[in-house]
Amino acid sequence: MKISNIDLSSYPNSEKIHVKGSLFPIEVAMRRVKQYPTVKIENGERVEYPNEYIVIYDTSGPYTDPNIRIDLNKGLPRDRERFIEQRDDTEVLPDITSDYGRMRRDDKSLDAIRFPIHHKPRRAKEGKRITQMHYAKKGMITPEMEYVAIRENLDNAQRGIPTYITPEFVRDEVAAGRAVIAANVNHPEAEPMIIGKAFSTKLNTNIGNSALSSGIEEEVAKAVWSCYWGGDTLMDLSTGDNIHETREWIIRNCPVPMGTVPIYQALEKVNGKVEDLTWEIYRDTLIEQCEQGVDYFTIHAGVLRKHAQLVKERLTGCVSRGGSIIMQWCVAHNEENFLYTHFDEICEILNKYDVAVSLGDGMRPGSIHDANDKAQFLELDVLGELTDVAWSHDVQVLIEGPGHVPMNKIPANMEKENVTCKEAPFYTLGPLTTDIAPAYDHITSAIGAAIISALGTSMICYVTPKEHLSLPNLEDVREGVIAYKIAAHAADLAKGFPGANVRDNALSKARYEFRWKDQFNLSLDPEKAKRFYLETRRNAPDADDRFCTMCGPNFCAMRISQNVVDKCDENHEV
Amino acid sequence: MKISNIDLSSYPNSEKIHVKGSLFPIEVAMRRVKQYPTVKIENGERVEYPNEYIVIYDTSGPYTDPNIRIDLNKGLPRDRERFIEQRDDTEVLPDITSDYGRMRRDDKSLDAIRFPIHHKPRRAKEGKRITQMHYAKKGMITPEMEYVAIRENLDNAQRGIPTYITPEFVRDEVAAGRAVIAANVNHPEAEPMIIGKAFSTKLNTNIGNSALSSGIEEEVAKAVWSCYWGGDTLMDLSTGDNIHETREWIIRNCPVPMGTVPIYQALEKVNGKVEDLTWEIYRDTLIEQCEQGVDYFTIHAGVLRKHAQLVKERLTGCVSRGGSIIMQWCVAHNEENFLYTHFDEICEILNKYDVAVSLGDGMRPGSIHDANDKAQFLELDVLGELTDVAWSHDVQVLIEGPGHVPMNKIPANMEKENVTCKEAPFYTLGPLTTDIAPAYDHITSAIGAAIISALGTSMICYVTPKEHLSLPNLEDVREGVIAYKIAAHAADLAKGFPGANVRDNALSKARYEFRWKDQFNLSLDPEKAKRFYLETRRNAPDADDRFCTMCGPNFCAMRISQNVVDKCDENHEV
Repeated sequence: MKISNIDLSSYPNSEKIHVKGSLFPIEVAMRRVKQYPTVKIENGERVEYPNEYIVIYDTSGPYTDPNIRIDLNKGLPRDRERFIEQRDDTEVLPDITSDYGRMRRDDKSLDAIRFPIHHKPRRAKEGKRITQMHYAKKGMITPEMEYVAIRENLDNAQRGIPTYITPEFVRDEVAAGRAVIAANVNHPEAEPMIIGKAFSTKLNTNIGNSALSSGIEEEVAKAVWSCYWGGDTLMDLSTGDNIHETREWIIRNCPVPMGTVPIYQALEKVNGKVEDLTWEIYRDTLIEQCEQGVDYFTIHAGVLRKHAQLVKERLTGCVSRGGSIIMQWCVAHNEENFLYTHFDEICEILNKYDVAVSLGDGMRPGSIHDANDKAQFLELDVLGELTDVAWSHDVQVLIEGPGHVPMNKIPANMEKENVTCKEAPFYTLGPLTTDIAPAYDHITSAIGAAIISALGTSMICYVTPKEHLSLPNLEDVREGVIAYKIAAHAADLAKGFPGANVRDNALSKARYEFRWKDQFNLSLDPEKAKRFYLETRRNAPDADDRFCTMCGPNFCAMRISQNVVDKCDENHEV
Repeated sequence: MKISNIDLSSYPNSEKIHVKGSLFPIEVAMRRVKQYPTVKIENGERVEYPNEYIVIYDTSGPYTDPNIRIDLNKGLPRDRERFIEQRDDTEVLPDITSDYGRMRRDDKSLDAIRFPIHHKPRRAKEGKRITQMHYAKKGMITPEMEYVAIRENLDNAQRGIPTYITPEFVRDEVAAGRAVIAANVNHPEAEPMIIGKAFSTKLNTNIGNSALSSGIEEEVAKAVWSCYWGGDTLMDLSTGDNIHETREWIIRNCPVPMGTVPIYQALEKVNGKVEDLTWEIYRDTLIEQCEQGVDYFTIHAGVLRKHAQLVKERLTGCVSRGGSIIMQWCVAHNEENFLYTHFDEICEILNKYDVAVSLGDGMRPGSIHDANDKAQFLELDVLGELTDVAWSHDVQVLIEGPGHVPMNKIPANMEKENVTCKEAPFYTLGPLTTDIAPAYDHITSAIGAAIISALGTSMICYVTPKEHLSLPNLEDVREGVIAYKIAAHAADLAKGFPGANVRDNALSKARYEFRWKDQFNLSLDPEKAKRFYLETRRNAPDADDRFCTMCGPNFCAMRISQNVVDKCDENHEV
């Protein structure tokens, strides 16, 4: 199918399957790749040996489900709504709570760009906490927990192999704060997923317009596109016009949890004048976004007034947008960061909608030179303190991490985060392992992301080839997502995550047996793999070419190797 | 300038410089990037602060030297010839030694494709060994050793900062076998370079036609192109027509050491029939290539007959072309590998021309499943044994390594190589850290290459996006080289190699100060960085845009950060 200008037909020989829950009436969507049989010639006869289906973690949501009709004007099915209702601890509000949200709704000039359907917001009933962490601490297993347990088990579930990942295990990890299920009650379109070191490594993608670019349709298409290629979560970092309306379109059509940095929009509301920011404007922005369905907020509550002077010692100062805004505010008012001073109130808002907090690293290093410096690690100490505060309100916590870090300094980041933030899931941007490769920073950072994920980071924020230079287009999003799928998967292999190697083994077997189409279909990007293959190959991969293109027909190592093995078999010796 | 269809003008604001030796009359070429001044407004006045030149290791040879006229039909200047002559331990032979070489020379039908100039071959005088290792063990410092010492010091040399890398240190490392200067006396066109863990990490590129592709002109252009982007050495892996003549063209125009896998050509000589391979044909091929000027040979002498049965336990068998050929030969003849049984004779040939041996890993794993298995590590034991043999003949040794290896199994490779092969430079292909990303294997392998280099691997063999699928075109070569420059440089930063961070710091300073052109010019690929920038930027980078394209004008973290620092300075407090 096609959405806007994007083509969602790059996964041949795949089908959507649904694995049923045993505790709850849930259906967990996965992608299954069918393989061709292995063909052998035995005693002059052609014999076929079937190859099993391979099940793949699927972030593409209903967009690849032929049984669901996609209509961007209606949004995705709101599957999770019934479970939220059944818990009976929320209520549908008669009206939007945010002043700004109501103002936008009542502005007739926005009708033309508004998402056509208005869903009334849902919030915890008076006195209730409705976060997954709250339930987990109470010993409750939710449908969301069973959903992610099945989803993480993947191939093993398919093969009936039990692993440690049970609903009860999920509950335990969420209760301890070691894992996060970001699932705002106002975003029932999203399929539950889990972020935590005991689970498969996740990747976040960023989209969003800026003053220099791009329209609503383009942003929605980018969101769908990034999920299609494998983005596990999505941050809308828009800073241009109509942020509120753009976000509504994206959330209603987004099958994965979505995050924002609310200070960006708060600043838009005061026309970019940092000095004019107030707690009241920020608070209204939080509520506005909670009621739209944002699943996690990046909040730079760890940047303190006293940190500003440390920036002077740096080569590249403060490279976090949110962090620099807060720093400027603190200096202008000579006051402490209002996100820090109001952090309890923030948590009391978040636990009414089940929005997770992603504690921003405003002091992340923007260059190799500044890695692991005092400013960075002092902020991490504050994030540890705030983690305790959030958890005391049953708010789920992610900890954001760097940035630009040379390989030898990466382990200290993970170690310090583990101790200071008590194993709250670490969520890092890369890190980039050198500064000298603009236009290739998806690679400089995939190296760092793979290393830090193998050490226990739970989610990595993608970087595209356009980082530092420009805004990514669709092709850049694809390149960035695939680079990060590689990093995440390489880390899962290194961690020994259950079943992670099933896909590698199947693809390598297909490769060794010259089942070219299976090799493509099992890869992260079947379309590109096939396209590259066809560049120097005269025949389509249907042809039974028993050599690889690198070697050519006379020299194919794998064919020779097979012949030798056959020969050994004949001789019963070597 | 342009060579064939390739454009060598991607490094703006750069100039070639030459650093003179103090022991020998050598001139070591480097590239120097000029920077624009930092502009500040002080008391309403525009003040310029100059930024220093940044010196960059330069593998592009005379192709970027405006004072040298390039004529592919004449080949590059043979600068090193005079030092070889002065040593007075070699002689120019009256004729080509190899039967095959003479046959090709006398074949008139090849005149049209033959390199126009014939240089008579040079060889050690009777009873002499002429390897850099031989000189080093005798306590001799050669011009090549001083050359590489200066070359490795780079920025430090420019700034007058002494490091540990002296000519005497180089001699010591070469004598101990921990470093290799691959410098055949018949390839005086190449600029000396050094491969060893105490030095900057090097990268090798592969080119070469196969039966499915490509002409001589295209291969020469690819060779130049790969050096231009940063390839430190070059392997010609041709397996198609006219290997001998193609190689001559490449060597005569190649400013970096060139390697081959002689068994490929030997097999061509017996029309691809492995059974017909003989020691005599192989030996003649070695001599043919020694006299053309090949600097290092991959020789799969560590594949033993008994290893063949271990292949049966593997998912992807033997994926080394050379290794599989040898295995097939052993099985067909029921004899031991003739490269192993004749290894002393091989070394006695190599030390007459100073050709290094790169001990091939015929049993390298071709999939995550097969990593670190018995076949692989048993072969590594044999390579350790052969290292001693080669060193006893004063032949320089590289050890080739995997392959496909998950991140958690990478350290064991380096540790075992260090012990078994006594720190002979490790030279690895990647390793690829997952199997599931054909079309992106420059990334899967750059991750592994960065990790293993940081652990002490001396040279990494690049992988292009076309790996497993197709033969690389020029754009793929560029992508592969840059991915590996990133891996190598990230490793140098992690190892704390002297001066490695100078370029990162300069580029990051330029970035922070919005000196866009300097940011591009200091990057690994200035042309692409600028092109990406211009995609969403309305103005050329000449415009003094004091914000980055990612953030847009209202939100630029770096500008806000600078304003805050200025404000702090004004207030003398925060």
